[in-house]
Formats: sequence, C-alpha cells, structure tokens
Amino acid sequence: MKQVVTIEELRRSRAQLEPPVGFVPTMGYLHAGHISLVELAKKDCATIVVSIFVNPTQFGPKEDLSAYPRDIPGDLKKLKDAGVNLVWLPTPEIVYPEGFNTWVTVEGMSEPLEGAVRLGHFRGVATVVAKLFNAVRPEKAYFGQKDAQQVAVIKQMTRDLNFPIEIVVGPTIRESDGLAMSSRNSYLNPMERKAATVLYRALSAAQTAYSAGERSGETLRTIMHQVIEAEPLAKLQYVSCADRETLRELDRIANGALLSMAVFIGNTRLIDNIVLHATNNK
Amino acid sequence: MKQVVTIEELRRSRAQLEPPVGFVPTMGYLHAGHISLVELAKKDCATIVVSIFVNPTQFGPKEDLSAYPRDIPGDLKKLKDAGVNLVWLPTPEIVYPEGFNTWVTVEGMSEPLEGAVRLGHFRGVATVVAKLFNAVRPEKAYFGQKDAQQVAVIKQMTRDLNFPIEIVVGPTIRESDGLAMSSRNSYLNPMERKAATVLYRALSAAQTAYSAGERSGETLRTIMHQVIEAEPLAKLQYVSCADRETLRELDRIANGALLSMAVFIGNTRLIDNIVLHATNNK
Repeated sequence: MKQVVTIEELRRSRAQLEPPVGFVPTMGYLHAGHISLVELAKKDCATIVVSIFVNPTQFGPKEDLSAYPRDIPGDLKKLKDAGVNLVWLPTPEIVYPEGFNTWVTVEGMSEPLEGAVRLGHFRGVATVVAKLFNAVRPEKAYFGQKDAQQVAVIKQMTRDLNFPIEIVVGPTIRESDGLAMSSRNSYLNPMERKAATVLYRALSAAQTAYSAGERSGETLRTIMHQVIEAEPLAKLQYVSCADRETLRELDRIANGALLSMAVFIGNTRLIDNIVLHATNNK
Repeated sequence: MKQVVTIEELRRSRAQLEPPVGFVPTMGYLHAGHISLVELAKKDCATIVVSIFVNPTQFGPKEDLSAYPRDIPGDLKKLKDAGVNLVWLPTPEIVYPEGFNTWVTVEGMSEPLEGAVRLGHFRGVATVVAKLFNAVRPEKAYFGQKDAQQVAVIKQMTRDLNFPIEIVVGPTIRESDGLAMSSRNSYLNPMERKAATVLYRALSAAQTAYSAGERSGETLRTIMHQVIEAEPLAKLQYVSCADRETLRELDRIANGALLSMAVFIGNTRLIDNIVLHATNNK
C-alpha cells in the first residue's frame, strides 16, 4: 500500500494504477463503516484510493475541528488489511494553500437540516470533494448513507459540474444495538453510549408506524420526537421526514422518504437516518 | 472536423483524440482573436477541441444574451480551416438541465471591475468553465488576454480546485487601428466603430506616460479618463490600474500592472486592457 502526501506524488502514483479506480474519501479514525465502503469498491474496481483529510472548511467556528479524533497509524493498518492500493494524506496547507478563494456551492438541498444548523458545512463539503475528485480522478467514488444529505449534495454537484465519476452509496453500518457507526461515537462515555441508541430507536419506531400504514409526515416526525424526548441524556436538534433527493419536508409520504435527525447526547452531536421501506406484511 | 452536441458524444469523441488535447472555449461568432488561440494551441497540442456556447449564466438580466451575435456555419468553416479536430456545440438544456443548482465562485478577484458592474458574471464564467473542463478534460486550455479579469479568475479557480489543466493566455488581437477584436464590435455602426478606437488610444496614452516615468496609478487613471471624455460617443464605465493577479487598484505602479476599462460606445459596451511594459528608452 503506497502512501502519498502532495498532489504531485498523488498524480504520479495515480497514473500507474490500473483502472477502474475506486475512491473512498474519509476524515480518518476509520471504523467498519469506512471499511465497508472499501469492500464495496473492491467489488467494482481494479484499484482503490483512500484519502484521509479532516477538512477544516466543513467545520463551523464552534465545532469540534481541533478535537476531531485522529489515529493515522491505526487507519493505515486497517486500510492495508482491507487491500487498499494508495492512501493520500494531504495537509491542510496542501488542500487550502495561502490565497485559496474558490468555493463550490450546491443551492437548495444544502440549506435545510444539517445545512441550517451547520452554516457553510456543505459549501466546505462540496468544495473539498470537487478538489479531491480533480486530484484523484477516480472512475467511481464511495460515500456512506449515514450522511444522507451529504450524499444528495455530492450527487447533485457531480451531475451539475459534469464530473465523469459514478457516485456509489454504501449502507449505514450499525453496532449490534443499532447505533450508527461514527468516528464521533468515541466522544461518548458509557452512559451516553447507552443513551445514543435512542436515534435508531426513534427511526425504527417511525418505520414501524409507516409499516402499519401511517402516511403523515407530521405524525412520523412526532413519533420520533417523542422517543427522543423520553431519553434524559438526549437533546433533539431536528427531526425530518423529507424527499431524499431534494431534502424538502413531506406531508404525505411513500417508500423512499428519508427520515433523519440530529441529536445531542451530552455534548456529542450525532446524526442518523433511514430510508422508509415497504415491509412484507403491508 | 467532428461536431458533437451531447456530453456523451463529446466524451466518446474525446476518448479517441491523441493527447495532449488543447481546448479553446468560445461563445462563437469567431474572429481572428479566437483563431489565434487555436493557432497557439496547435503549437503545443496534438489535437484541438473548441466549444461554442453562449453561456446564459454569465449575462445579467439586462444584458445582451438574446441579441448576442451568432453565426454557427461561419464559425464551423473558420474552425475547419484552422485545423480543429472536434467542435462541441451544446444546447443550454445540456449545460443547465432542469434542477441545475451548483455554482463555482471565486471570491476576492471576482468582485471589482467587471464583477462590480456585471453582478454574477464571474460566477457564471467560473461555473461554466468548471463544467467545460470536466466534460472535455483537456491537458491545456486557452484564453485571451482581452478578458484579463476572466483570465485571473479562471487561473485561480483552476489552481484552487486542482484541475490538472494548464491555462495558456494568448495576446489581445487588434484591428489595424488598435480596436481589440470582439464579437460585440459587430454592434457598432460606422461612426461608433470609428469612436471605438478611443479605448486603445486611452490605454496607449497611459502607457506613454508610464514609459516617460509616471508611476502614480491615480495619474494614469486620470489620463485614461481624459482621453475617453474627449470622445463624444463614448461613456466611461470604469478605468482601472490594478495588480493583474489580485485586481486590486494600485497607488504606485511597476511593470506588469494591468490597465483596464469598460466604455459604452452608444449602446455597445466594450472592454480593453494592456499590461504595462518597460520600453527601450526607459
């Protein structure tokens, strides 16, 4: 497994990789969710490139950039074991050199939900992903459904800017008790870790109501709200029942609607989502 | 010379071109300035791609989009005679399909001069050029110095977004009386055409003063202003004496400063610029 830092090194190494090249961009502190994207990429692609870069421009001024967990040696071992060919570890100065002044903005779907509470977040995401795409030039790029709005934003950007890259979305990987895997789960103390299952419990309660025939977006939002409120360590930031491409809130729902939420467990902000699906008994 | 319309056709044809590929994006109604960029590209590149697309997003609501001159048959003949390999003629619906929502913005240098009087112009330019770059994937792209601020914006965007494309700038091509070639010169009636030489006369007067030792930006701006004011058919929009990379106005100047202006001749808005140069006698 080759490791590179500069864009010039990346381009030289990339030029020698057998196509199709699959690309998994990450912020490091890798867990089974990231590795599942590498495994997914290996099914379609001859060679795999992973980037590790904690992107400062997608963090707000009061967010956890400096505290964001990092473990480069552990990450490299996991990627080597997973059969990755090339790892790119750029510095912030390489990605954002002095005088950097260009931004990619996806209007509309960047504005609600995460975009409303994390101002500028998706501008940072879209900008860094455009840069990573131009630096790596993969045939396919892999993102996790865990960040559902990010997936929608990146798909729209890729289409709108004519990147010749296929976006592939991997399913959310969960702990055995349902908690969605996230690097931020490492912030939770044991009591908080237990309380954090409330996100998936709330999503599951809404899916159960949907499976039983409930079709009101407002009712599903209320159900999720109530499950979260019942958990003393949880503080709800938002719940949503939206179209999964436009992120617009829905009144009447159908299969494929996106249920999502952001919840503080103590000081740790967690997000989760599911896409509503039909069940056998309906 | 092959002609294509859709992005899929473009990609198929592009894949068969011998590299390096040189790309000349245009809005059509081609003149000797455009052809000089093709000739420049032929020096460095094995094959040449030209796009013709009158980009609606770089026109303001009160600007001349619908009246912008078009002559596709004439353009195709000129490009064929110049030895171009592939011409891409996308429709507005191909470039901006329904639901298009992604914008590329270069902050800072997009704001003064043309950016101040043509709000949103450089957002439209940066966005379409990013799209054209991703669709064509050239090794080199060619732009005219006539649009000096556009050159600065595109260079910055290319660097900031890590496009692996070299930006090459060709000199402004002028009529024998000094008027910079522009598709918009076709709007001028004979009297206006004569008056339009005032832009280059003003720039030349400032260069003469610079060559004679003048080093005050304010004085050079005044000299240009006075030459324009003396022409009854001309109405000055702005004059500038700025750093040619940042576009910031300069008090004290040196070789390489950019003199630029926008002037209405009747209803036709013309721009021109020169980069100050040392002369033999100084």
